[in-house]
Amino acid sequence: MRSDLDHVRRRGLRLHSKQGDCHLQGASAYATAEEIGPSDLVIIALKATSNEALVELIPPLLKEDTILLTLQNGLGNEEFLAEHFGAERVIGGLCFVCLNRTEPGVIRHLGAGTISIGEFTGLPLPRTHEIASEFKRSGVVCNVKPDLARERWKKLVWNIPFNGLAIAAGGIDVAEILADPDLEFLARQLMREVISSARQLGHELPASLVEDQVKATHPMGPYKPSSLIDFLEGREVEIEAIWGEPYRRAANAGAEVGRLEYLYHEIRRALRTRQ
Amino acid sequence: MRSDLDHVRRRGLRLHSKQGDCHLQGASAYATAEEIGPSDLVIIALKATSNEALVELIPPLLKEDTILLTLQNGLGNEEFLAEHFGAERVIGGLCFVCLNRTEPGVIRHLGAGTISIGEFTGLPLPRTHEIASEFKRSGVVCNVKPDLARERWKKLVWNIPFNGLAIAAGGIDVAEILADPDLEFLARQLMREVISSARQLGHELPASLVEDQVKATHPMGPYKPSSLIDFLEGREVEIEAIWGEPYRRAANAGAEVGRLEYLYHEIRRALRTRQ
Repeated sequence: MRSDLDHVRRRGLRLHSKQGDCHLQGASAYATAEEIGPSDLVIIALKATSNEALVELIPPLLKEDTILLTLQNGLGNEEFLAEHFGAERVIGGLCFVCLNRTEPGVIRHLGAGTISIGEFTGLPLPRTHEIASEFKRSGVVCNVKPDLARERWKKLVWNIPFNGLAIAAGGIDVAEILADPDLEFLARQLMREVISSARQLGHELPASLVEDQVKATHPMGPYKPSSLIDFLEGREVEIEAIWGEPYRRAANAGAEVGRLEYLYHEIRRALRTRQ
Repeated sequence: MRSDLDHVRRRGLRLHSKQGDCHLQGASAYATAEEIGPSDLVIIALKATSNEALVELIPPLLKEDTILLTLQNGLGNEEFLAEHFGAERVIGGLCFVCLNRTEPGVIRHLGAGTISIGEFTGLPLPRTHEIASEFKRSGVVCNVKPDLARERWKKLVWNIPFNGLAIAAGGIDVAEILADPDLEFLARQLMREVISSARQLGHELPASLVEDQVKATHPMGPYKPSSLIDFLEGREVEIEAIWGEPYRRAANAGAEVGRLEYLYHEIRRALRTRQ
């Protein structure tokens, strides 16, 4: 932990949720990886923009069979870990959850809360199922997926338009996107473009995802995607993981990416010119 | 004339230009078409958003061989005139000029000032050259073009990105577009998309236009395109003529129009939500 360390050591972690609040007083929080030492499983939840820090953070945690599970957003994180620490260690995971860290040591849980994991290099192994079982024993729904890359693209079908338009349209929530006929249309068209891009890269996704995602977004109400909160609070935004890398991979594969390209450059400009 | 009529009748028309100022005291200004009566040539310079008014304005001006020359922006104006008054009357023209009407009866000329005209239904006729000669006799450079539709698309290669991004990016001038690396990139990509769209519709335009237009725009400095001024002053913007109609024609022809579609919907939203 960085800025939250002292607070969490003194007061623990607090989770506010409609499913019940929770206070974890004896949270094991450390300032350095050396204090933790070699581990069976390292769960990486750093923002993707800080990946370079992993080059120093991870080595003290490694033993021969240490597994690296990245729960980060977007594309490129498994590749980064594989390049530095070996592809065979790497498992990827996706978090389907609406939550915001509102102040030091405090997390506000707004909805959902499942994890999907998959091997980076191929089909699920016994270790993949063992990790899923560990999550389930802790009360977290965790599904094992046969095709991690497909799951990543499937999640981008939501993240690219909703996180993106929330920033590009001047800092608005998902309800405002859906209430504006032009933004709702652009969100749908962006979803279609992401689905086509995924297909071009060999990941079959159904066209019905567009309608499914719009339907699933309405009940979220005035939810601010995490990238928007990062943007509004002046923190780094995972622009390359969520928009840049998918755009480049799809363009290189020959997919039609005009809308994605447009959105990516609008977000770049918004980040460059924000107050 | 509408709101400027009294002013121009009393004080005439004033033109401010680096090439010399000009004051036309005895300008023939009329409130109604009936006062003018049947004419050889009707030059239509109304904003395209007011085209419905032409259905009442033009009939009093018509005799058997009256020519209708539209100097309006974008696509769809010749078609509108052809539908209501017969295609054989219609000539289209493009104005290459930077100018703004700054107050009643006053025009500020900032640069350029040539006209290109062409027949709506085919190749130039003797009458096309006669009209060009009339303009030349009045000191206006006027070129006759064999393919009007191609000229319209060529002009859109500039108007779509520069008028469009000026509005969509929050009300900025062309120098600010060129100074922002993301907007400059989007402007170039939009130009490429318009060129491809024109080609898909059978109008051959060279790829070198992109570089030519960027080079021609730099000397304009902080020029505000006319659509931006309309937008900022709360007046109607020619969104369908400049963006909507080109977008729909290109999409129907199977061209890749993701960027144009995105820009069109951003402008629609900007118009809907402007203060």
